[in-house]
Order: sequence, then structure tokens, then C-alpha cells
Amino acid sequence: MTTSLWTVFGSEVTGTAILILLGVGVVANVLLAKSGALGGGYIVIIFGWGLAVFAGVFAAATSGAHLNPAVTIGLLVSGAAEYAPGVEVTLASTLVYFAAELLGAFIGAVLAWLAFRKHYETETDPGTILGTFSTGPAIKSYVDNIITEALGTFVLVYIVLRFGDTPTEIGPLAVALLVVGIGASLGGPTGYAINPARDLGPRIAHFLLPIKNKGASNWSYAWVPIVGPIIGAVLAGLFSHVSI
Amino acid sequence: MTTSLWTVFGSEVTGTAILILLGVGVVANVLLAKSGALGGGYIVIIFGWGLAVFAGVFAAATSGAHLNPAVTIGLLVSGAAEYAPGVEVTLASTLVYFAAELLGAFIGAVLAWLAFRKHYETETDPGTILGTFSTGPAIKSYVDNIITEALGTFVLVYIVLRFGDTPTEIGPLAVALLVVGIGASLGGPTGYAINPARDLGPRIAHFLLPIKNKGASNWSYAWVPIVGPIIGAVLAGLFSHVSI
Amino acid sequence: MTTSLWTVFGSEVTGTAILILLGVGVVANVLLAKSGALGGGYIVIIFGWGLAVFAGVFAAATSGAHLNPAVTIGLLVSGAAEYAPGVEVTLASTLVYFAAELLGAFIGAVLAWLAFRKHYETETDPGTILGTFSTGPAIKSYVDNIITEALGTFVLVYIVLRFGDTPTEIGPLAVALLVVGIGASLGGPTGYAINPARDLGPRIAHFLLPIKNKGASNWSYAWVPIVGPIIGAVLAGLFSHVSI
Amino acid sequence: MTTSLWTVFGSEVTGTAILILLGVGVVANVLLAKSGALGGGYIVIIFGWGLAVFAGVFAAATSGAHLNPAVTIGLLVSGAAEYAPGVEVTLASTLVYFAAELLGAFIGAVLAWLAFRKHYETETDPGTILGTFSTGPAIKSYVDNIITEALGTFVLVYIVLRFGDTPTEIGPLAVALLVVGIGASLGGPTGYAINPARDLGPRIAHFLLPIKNKGASNWSYAWVPIVGPIIGAVLAGLFSHVSI
Repeated sequence: MTTSLWTVFGSEVTGTAILILLGVGVVANVLLAKSGALGGGYIVIIFGWGLAVFAGVFAAATSGAHLNPAVTIGLLVSGAAEYAPGVEVTLASTLVYFAAELLGAFIGAVLAWLAFRKHYETETDPGTILGTFSTGPAIKSYVDNIITEALGTFVLVYIVLRFGDTPTEIGPLAVALLVVGIGASLGGPTGYAINPARDLGPRIAHFLLPIKNKGASNWSYAWVPIVGPIIGAVLAGLFSHVSI
Repeated sequence: MTTSLWTVFGSEVTGTAILILLGVGVVANVLLAKSGALGGGYIVIIFGWGLAVFAGVFAAATSGAHLNPAVTIGLLVSGAAEYAPGVEVTLASTLVYFAAELLGAFIGAVLAWLAFRKHYETETDPGTILGTFSTGPAIKSYVDNIITEALGTFVLVYIVLRFGDTPTEIGPLAVALLVVGIGASLGGPTGYAINPARDLGPRIAHFLLPIKNKGASNWSYAWVPIVGPIIGAVLAGLFSHVSI
Repeated sequence: MTTSLWTVFGSEVTGTAILILLGVGVVANVLLAKSGALGGGYIVIIFGWGLAVFAGVFAAATSGAHLNPAVTIGLLVSGAAEYAPGVEVTLASTLVYFAAELLGAFIGAVLAWLAFRKHYETETDPGTILGTFSTGPAIKSYVDNIITEALGTFVLVYIVLRFGDTPTEIGPLAVALLVVGIGASLGGPTGYAINPARDLGPRIAHFLLPIKNKGASNWSYAWVPIVGPIIGAVLAGLFSHVSI
Repeated sequence: MTTSLWTVFGSEVTGTAILILLGVGVVANVLLAKSGALGGGYIVIIFGWGLAVFAGVFAAATSGAHLNPAVTIGLLVSGAAEYAPGVEVTLASTLVYFAAELLGAFIGAVLAWLAFRKHYETETDPGTILGTFSTGPAIKSYVDNIITEALGTFVLVYIVLRFGDTPTEIGPLAVALLVVGIGASLGGPTGYAINPARDLGPRIAHFLLPIKNKGASNWSYAWVPIVGPIIGAVLAGLFSHVSI
């Protein structure tokens, strides 16, 4: 059975929107002024992002739940024939995934802003506000930041490509826990975008939304969480030819 | 085989009572004076609520373990034929679920009060005492609070409606983790009722129980965690027609 | 096939010893002077105990992994025919479980002391030392303490008796997460023994072991974490006749 | 079907490298100056290491994912016929596992250093820097440190040997959670190497890498996290003859 590209589009938009609603949400929840979860700490953030993936995967099951251009690229480079059951790998389908992931991420960030609107109004630090939407480096160094993002994405995409080999029935929980782990282990230097749409979509939302104390959207860094994850995904796809 | 509505009633009362015993319990455990878990933090609260759902689902397996009028409404609006194997969707069965969920939530709150009776006696802050029973807004704004509750409930109910599509054998753990995730990501602004019974049942218990330093039960807010979740559940049920 | 009572004995001793090595261990790890995990907090303690159960269940799989007289009593009262595949419910087998659980708990506490021997030597607070072995009330009140222990044990034993009804393949993880949840929600008032052997075995170890700054073993409280869990287990077994 | 020893070698190098990238990574993430996860605490460290195992096991599925000479030794002593489907237990295969585990651990530590390079440059405390690579005792006492490492490794290897007995479909998650649990319960005194390669590979990396403020590599302790785990693994393998 073939899945239409309209269905793929709707499925990935929905799944990525839910991913980013919960993902931007957890950072807002833990960082924004007067939130009941203020100070919840890094452990809440990594579980929040992991479980955001968990929910998003169920929502986008029909289209294989990429939710992330890096996953799409990894599958492409790995030589997969299909992106999901009934979805052939073609130029058209690849572009549909990219567009849906970016649009979904934008919508998710707008929804998260809605959920925390009063807290965004109350928050006075522009850096905190931007930090709930997009990632940024703890120490700015383009080369190092790209390496960190590429390594994190490599682990994500390579292990996702390996899931088929190991008997387990936990389904979406596996990728959720993988994202918790990458956050725990490699998140500090760059905020672990490990997903170009995850960073760019919310950054556009930050740029467009009317938030009182927001500052600039730090566009000069915006290419790093795109290029780093793409490099990691390509390497993961290539390495899968050797190792799987 | 048909399950009698008496069985549905008993099952949902039991499951919701256990859900709320553990759910009100975790807030009491982390917040009340002299508790050994005092200061355990937000991460304990979100895992406590998630695992409260986990236990409640096993207890109410016979009736499909709604434990939440929003889930019942979501299934109704989605056009499901049955609420659980052998339980037809009818006006009568719908009302039985609602009544059992509310009664169970009330009973659970009374049991939690019993488990922490000495700590309720010791606690001197009325806001903390009410906060262990019912939810409240971090920043009061009816429109925003309803939006936040509706979004959280939409994610809960929509993903629960999707569980059937994705192969996983983790059973009740899936919904438990979903609730951990919603708490992590969207809990700060309103305390994530995402369940009208979860808020109203314990609020009635707070109103009736003899607790030395308790204050008012904040009835003026009580409609928000009913209306918000109902809106979210209806939207999830409607959206499931488009997307599943 | 019948499992001999010698095998049951060895299996339960092994499993309970591993449970208590890790369970007493996590409290020592988080509380004792100079431990690298000092200050890890309540979230570490509840996951530590839950995963202690996880490991213990694998170790005692042959005998059904009770690890807890309350589980044995719950099965007895529920009218089960077997304690594990091939292990009939008889007076003899019941006493073998009790004896093995208590001996295993004692051995586990001694092993945990070995693992932390230098830290026990360094710790100067007798209350902290006793607190790593046995439970105690945050606010002393025999009636309330028994109620809290009975409620926690009721949830544990009742849900364990329900596990058979709900399709899930996560095996020992279910009971591990249930114990994490009970700790999160009901642990503060009494330290959640919810298992007579878990409290008595380590208390005997505390009494016998040569620890420089240890104080009294608080025998006047020792009956509470025996009687409370037994009451909870009996109620769970009885309630299972109504509801399952 | 036979798996060639070249494949075993590549598989174990890959899996152990990912294990140590994420494992050394989580300690760097939580401890190094200016990391966004600074102060994340012990709970992040134990989940980070556990999920490092989770990812590593998928990566090395082909070779049975030992990732740890202690696991290899435990299987050897237990009398297993194969180290993985199609990999016979021989002197040659044993040495291939050891070599691959050590090389993988070294590579993983170098990758983690790359991911955190700017933070290693910024960190000024040599003890913190070494602590991200290798383990060390909270209180130095060779006998006690060996006992603690042996006990932790015994639990790891013995429960891994038992996994076959208990029906569960959670696959690599089981060993991941076991490692979270051992960290929670027994990690404080020695930093829970419980794996000779996990300690030695990164220690060699620490010795060789150009890190500005690094101090000595504490070679006088390096034998402890080798000998302790070997003792624990041998005991677990022997005990499995009695109990399984």
C-alpha cells in the first residue's frame, strides 16, 4: 500500500508540532519567570525532550516519524528504499519531509508560546526567552560547536538506523530514551539541537512572535545547528554501510 | 462478552482512587512540612504523577482504565464504538464513567490525606495544603489557563487515541510516560490538571476534610481545570477523525 | 515440574540479598559522609530502590521473586494455588519464603555495609547511619505510621496481583516502576518499608555490625514496618477477591 | 552462521566507543566549567551512564554487545559455549573482545574530549578533568575499593547472566536500567567503573591528550578498577553454576 505525500506531510507536521510544543515547553517550564516548575533542573529538561520525542513518534507513526531532517538524511544516505512503509525515497518525498518538519517545528513553537504566554510576558531576560526557543553555544566556537552537534546527531541517527537489528518491543520508547541519553551526555556545550528543524522552526517563531522583552534571534549562529546535524547524519548514513 | 456497568463503576473507582492516592500523595510528599521527601523537587512530582497513572491503569484494566473524564470524552468524540472491550458507548455508560472517576478521585484524596495526616496537621501554610489537593494557576488569567490546560489535555488524549497505531508492548507504561512528559513540559503554568476529576474530586475532599490550617478551597478557579481539559479532549477527538 | 523448597530458599535469599544490597546501598550512597553521591537527593533514592527490585526480581525468577513477606501473604490471602510455577502454597513453603526473605535481607545489608565500610567509619551521625539500614517515622505516631505503611503496601501488593490482567511485556520493570512510584508518592512519612523483611533484616545487621558511631537500633519502632505491611497485604489479598 | 572475529572486533569497538563517548560525556557535561548542564547532579550522571550502555548495546548487537571485559569474563567462567550467536568461546575470541573493548573505550574518550574541547580548555581543576575520564576513590583504601568494585560488577554480570530466565521484551533497556541502578546504589565510594576497559581506556586518553590544566593520570590507582571488576565477574560466573 502506498501512503500519499499529503498524508506524509500531515503526519510529519503533526508529529513535529507535538515534539516542539513539548520540547520548547519543557525549557519554558523550567526557565521562565513564575513557572511552577522553575528550577526543576537539567534532569527535567532531558526527560522532557525525550518524552517529547516519545509523544511525537506516536503522532507521526504513519510517516515513520522522522520529525527531524537529520533522520531523513540519514535514511537517504544509508540507502534505504523507503522512508516509511509505503513511502518511497524520492526527491519529492525528501522535500516533503523537510518542509513538514520545519513547518511542524514552527507551529509547535507557537503553541508552546501560547501555553506559556503570561510567563513570556513576565520574563524580563531576553537570553532566557531566546533559550526557550532555540539552542545556543555555552562557549562560542563555530568549529567546536559543529563538532559537538555532529557527534550528538551521529549517535542519534546511527542508533536509530540500528534499531532494526536488536530484538526489543519497546517501540518509540527506544528513541525517546536515546534522546534523553544524548541530552544527558552531550547537551551542555550547544544545547543539543541534533535536528535542524528543531532549531530553525522555533527561531523563526521567536523572530515573528510578539514577545515584550525578547531580544535578537541570534541569526549569526542559526547555521550551526543546521550544518552540524547534517554532517552527523551523513556520517551516520555512511557508517551504516560499513557496519550493519 | 459484555462487562456490566457495575463492574465498570467499581473498576474506575478503584483505578482513579489509586491514581489520586499516589498523585495527591506525591505533592504532599514533596511539599508538606517534615516529610522525608521534602524538597524532592519537580522531577519527583512528574514521575510520581506518571507512575500514579501507571498503577491506576493496572487497577482499572477491566474498564479500559480511563481514570479521566477527558479520556472518556475523547473516545466519545472520536467515534469509538466501545469504551473498553465489552463496554458499549451509550449515555448511561458515559455517565457511569464520569461518576466513577469523580468518586474515585475523591476517595483517593481522602486516602492520601490519611497517609499524610500528621504532616497536614504540622503544615501551617494554607496555600501548600490546597496545592497538594488541587491545581491552581502560577499567573491567574482564565483565558491563558484554559489554553494551557486544553493543550496539555489535547496531547494526552490525542496520543492515547494513537496508541493503537504503533507497535509497542509496553502497555500502561506508555500512558504513564506520556503523563510524565506533559508534566515536564506543560505543568508549570497551571499545575496540569488535564483531568477534570483529578482536580474536582480532591478539591471537594479539601473542602470537607478537617485540616487545621487549611484555607479556602478556591472554588472561583474550580471551573478552569474542568473546562480546559474538556476543550482539549473534544479537539483531540475531532482531530483524530482527520488524522488517524 | 516441581521446584524444590531448597531451590525456593536459595532463590529468594539471593534475590532479597541483591534487593537489599542495592536498597540499603542507595541510601548509604546518598547520605553517608564523603560518598561521591552525597546530596544526590530523593529522586536517586526512589530510582535506586526501584531498580534494586528490578535486579532482585531477575535474581529470584525461579521462585517467583517475592522478595517480600507482604507479597507472599498477599498471594496466600488472594487464594493463589502456587507461589510460583511448580511451588505449591503450603504452610511449609510459606515459612520457607519468610525465612529466605529475612535471611536475604540480612545478608544484603551486610554486603552494603561492606561496600561502604570506610564511609560508615567516617560518618559521625548515628541517625544517618541507622537511616541507611532501617526505616523510621518523620513524625512518630504509631497509628498514622501503620496507616501509611499499610496504604503503600496495599498499592504494591494489589497492583502486583493485577499484573496478570493487563498485556505488557516489560516484566520485572513493571514492579520496579511501581516501587519507584510508591516511593515518590508515599515514602516521606515512614521511609516506605512496605516489606517487613526489608526493615527487620537490615535492623538486625545494624544491631550486630561493628560500626564506630552507630547508636541504638530503635527496636521500639521495629514492629511498625512489620505490622503495617502485613495489614496492607491482607487487605490487598482480600480486595482481589472482589475486584479481579 | 559464524560471525568473523573481524566483525566482532569492529562491532565491539563501535559499541564501546559510543558507550564511552556518552559515559565520559555525561560526567564532562555535568562537571566541566561553563557547560550548560553544570550542576545537573548525580541523577543525570546515573541516567547518562545507563543510557550510554543502552546506545552502545544497539551499536554492538552483532557481537553480543559485551562492551566490558567483565562481561566477557563472566560468560567465560559461566561455561557459555558462545559469546554471541555464531561467536565461539576460544582464547582468540576472548582476546579479540578484550582488545576491542579497550580500543573502543580509548576512542570514545577521545571523541568525548572533542565534544567538550572548549570546556576542557576552560576548566582549571585537574581533579575535575581527570574525574571526567577515569574513576577514583572517595576514600582511598585498596581493599575497600576493590570490594566495592567487585560487588557492583558481581551484580552487573550476575544479573546479565540471568536475563535469559525471565520473560521480558525490553531488550537493551534491561541492562541500561541495571547500570542506572548500580550507579544509584553503589557508585559513591569508587565512581563505579565495574568495567576495566571503561576506566583504563579513558585513563590512557587522559594521559595522551593535550589538555591545558590536566594533572597526573593517577596510575597508582589504575589497577583497582581492573582487579575489582575481574574478581566480581569471576564470582558471578561461578555463582551462576550454582544458581541458574
